[in-house]
Amino acid sequence: MSLTYFTPGPAQLYPTFENHLQTFVSGQLGSISHRSQQYRDLHKFTVDQLRMLLRVPQTHAILFLGSASEVWERVLLSCVELESFHLVNGSFSKKFYDYSNALNKYAHKLEKPMGQGFTAEEIEVPQYAELICVTHNETSSGVQMPVSEIHKLKEKNPNKFIAVDMVSSAPYPELDFRIIDTAFFSVQKSFGLPAGLGVWIVSEKCLQKAEYIRNQYSIGAHNDLPTLWKNAQSNETPATPNVMGIYLLGKIAEDFNRIGVGVMRRETEQKAALIYEFIKNADGFSSFVKEKASQSQTVVVADTISPSADIIKKLKEKGMVVGSGYGQYKSSQLRIANFPATSIEEVESLIYELGKF
Amino acid sequence: MSLTYFTPGPAQLYPTFENHLQTFVSGQLGSISHRSQQYRDLHKFTVDQLRMLLRVPQTHAILFLGSASEVWERVLLSCVELESFHLVNGSFSKKFYDYSNALNKYAHKLEKPMGQGFTAEEIEVPQYAELICVTHNETSSGVQMPVSEIHKLKEKNPNKFIAVDMVSSAPYPELDFRIIDTAFFSVQKSFGLPAGLGVWIVSEKCLQKAEYIRNQYSIGAHNDLPTLWKNAQSNETPATPNVMGIYLLGKIAEDFNRIGVGVMRRETEQKAALIYEFIKNADGFSSFVKEKASQSQTVVVADTISPSADIIKKLKEKGMVVGSGYGQYKSSQLRIANFPATSIEEVESLIYELGKF
Repeated sequence: MSLTYFTPGPAQLYPTFENHLQTFVSGQLGSISHRSQQYRDLHKFTVDQLRMLLRVPQTHAILFLGSASEVWERVLLSCVELESFHLVNGSFSKKFYDYSNALNKYAHKLEKPMGQGFTAEEIEVPQYAELICVTHNETSSGVQMPVSEIHKLKEKNPNKFIAVDMVSSAPYPELDFRIIDTAFFSVQKSFGLPAGLGVWIVSEKCLQKAEYIRNQYSIGAHNDLPTLWKNAQSNETPATPNVMGIYLLGKIAEDFNRIGVGVMRRETEQKAALIYEFIKNADGFSSFVKEKASQSQTVVVADTISPSADIIKKLKEKGMVVGSGYGQYKSSQLRIANFPATSIEEVESLIYELGKF
Repeated sequence: MSLTYFTPGPAQLYPTFENHLQTFVSGQLGSISHRSQQYRDLHKFTVDQLRMLLRVPQTHAILFLGSASEVWERVLLSCVELESFHLVNGSFSKKFYDYSNALNKYAHKLEKPMGQGFTAEEIEVPQYAELICVTHNETSSGVQMPVSEIHKLKEKNPNKFIAVDMVSSAPYPELDFRIIDTAFFSVQKSFGLPAGLGVWIVSEKCLQKAEYIRNQYSIGAHNDLPTLWKNAQSNETPATPNVMGIYLLGKIAEDFNRIGVGVMRRETEQKAALIYEFIKNADGFSSFVKEKASQSQTVVVADTISPSADIIKKLKEKGMVVGSGYGQYKSSQLRIANFPATSIEEVESLIYELGKF
């Protein structure tokens, strides 16, 4: 039986994935040299499609790494000489903070319990912090930080860098890259692809900072920003890249552009509204995230009265896979991904089945 | 027209690749959680097959990273507090050396011109070097260091760590992991898979060294050895891994084990002998690497009298793709990969066509 994955990553693969994969295989693209014009054209196609999709200006490069976790490290090495600042309200924002400590930076944080969000107004960035690390969508708790709040936070702190983790939400957040210095995501969430590729959008100002830091501290050797940037100018990568992932991402981004990112964002909101409406009204379910503005549009977290494992098991019998809660909430929550790969009809079917509990 | 790739990576995909990919897709394995038992079983399968293929003892972990270049960095961060030592005789051994400098280690080197190899006898390792970095197969020049020399080098320096780059040769070199501390490869060479995955074989002694270094210096945040090691104990990875790559690698390694690694090594030598015999006797070709013991079995580099671009173009019309020379040798050399994905019949066809020049 074919299953529909409503899991927050790895997730349901996008419906066009198999066709694109077939084209990749029949074109023998897995064998082409990453120093050939054929590769450079493929690479440029993906960059161009992402640039269009996310409205990334020419001041920013779009770079390919092994995973978004790798990007955490490279952002910190490139933009932080001494001190970073982190908004922490779940496992993934916490890991970004942990990375900074592991790199021997001085990491400040403003921490809130899981399920709670941040507004720009309440945030005081420490004086010497060079980089503000924001998680647009905390995959562990289903909390989003509204894009308007992220923009306000940067406007309040124009002389500090801001990095936006949009791993489990891109291309949903409409970030304004005229003010956002760097952001990143991975492909196994909203883009509906197998894992193994991270995408890093990063400004020339970050590059300059990395070049400055390099005079005194190591900014890493593998995929260091100046080398990535230089190679990106000719649509290449320093090391042999995940050509298959980059190709598939370009094709999916092209599909998204055909639909139009505005339409996709509205569909995301429409499907999210259905799920939130259901858990608000149904006996046995409630939204973990109480503040409406903080409710994620791409990962909905529901508290359950029945053990969530029972619900997950029953749903699987119906061909649907949803995620369990994260960490301490494993048995008392469901995490339901709302990515483009699952249609409104599939979301309605899920709600129908959930309604039986 | 379907092409046969004799390029040194990305290379010809292994003949069973498409079937394994189909199984991956139809099993919806691109959507499974990397924290599920289904994933852990898949991960363990690949580790077990590689352990059998390369005779890796339980003292060593087998870890999955984004690329072999990433492993260079993680090896240096984990095994070198202050000083490393590098045998440099081509672009890739040089990059390993460059990485050490970029990480602010003190990197020593013994350098020879491209095309020349090393013997254990001639190597004096600097007193305070903690790690000896050896490239078993220098992809840029077609020079190999015989495994017996690598073993001798370690035996001469039992108190130093030794790291073996076998990116473009594994599983050909029969390394003795009772004495080799760490080694690594990527999957787009001999394993005939699309790029995007690096494999790191590393001993518990390296782990201990990493834990020691961590007390004073950063050993990195992403894929740091202690975290990778801990996750590997339960057949997981710290971040979402390239599940597709890991799955396909396990299936190809299983195919290799069915054939038997001894048989595969002999076939590699048999095919290499045909190519070397041809370029020795044919007008217009000669082996770039003169010392027989240094001649790579997996990447044969030939000097050509005609511009190599002309030969490459003509061969492509016949459905065969060979690599150009590396860097300064781009126009005067061919690089011919001799990986398991190309059969003896295909090598004979290549030689037949080369014979027309």
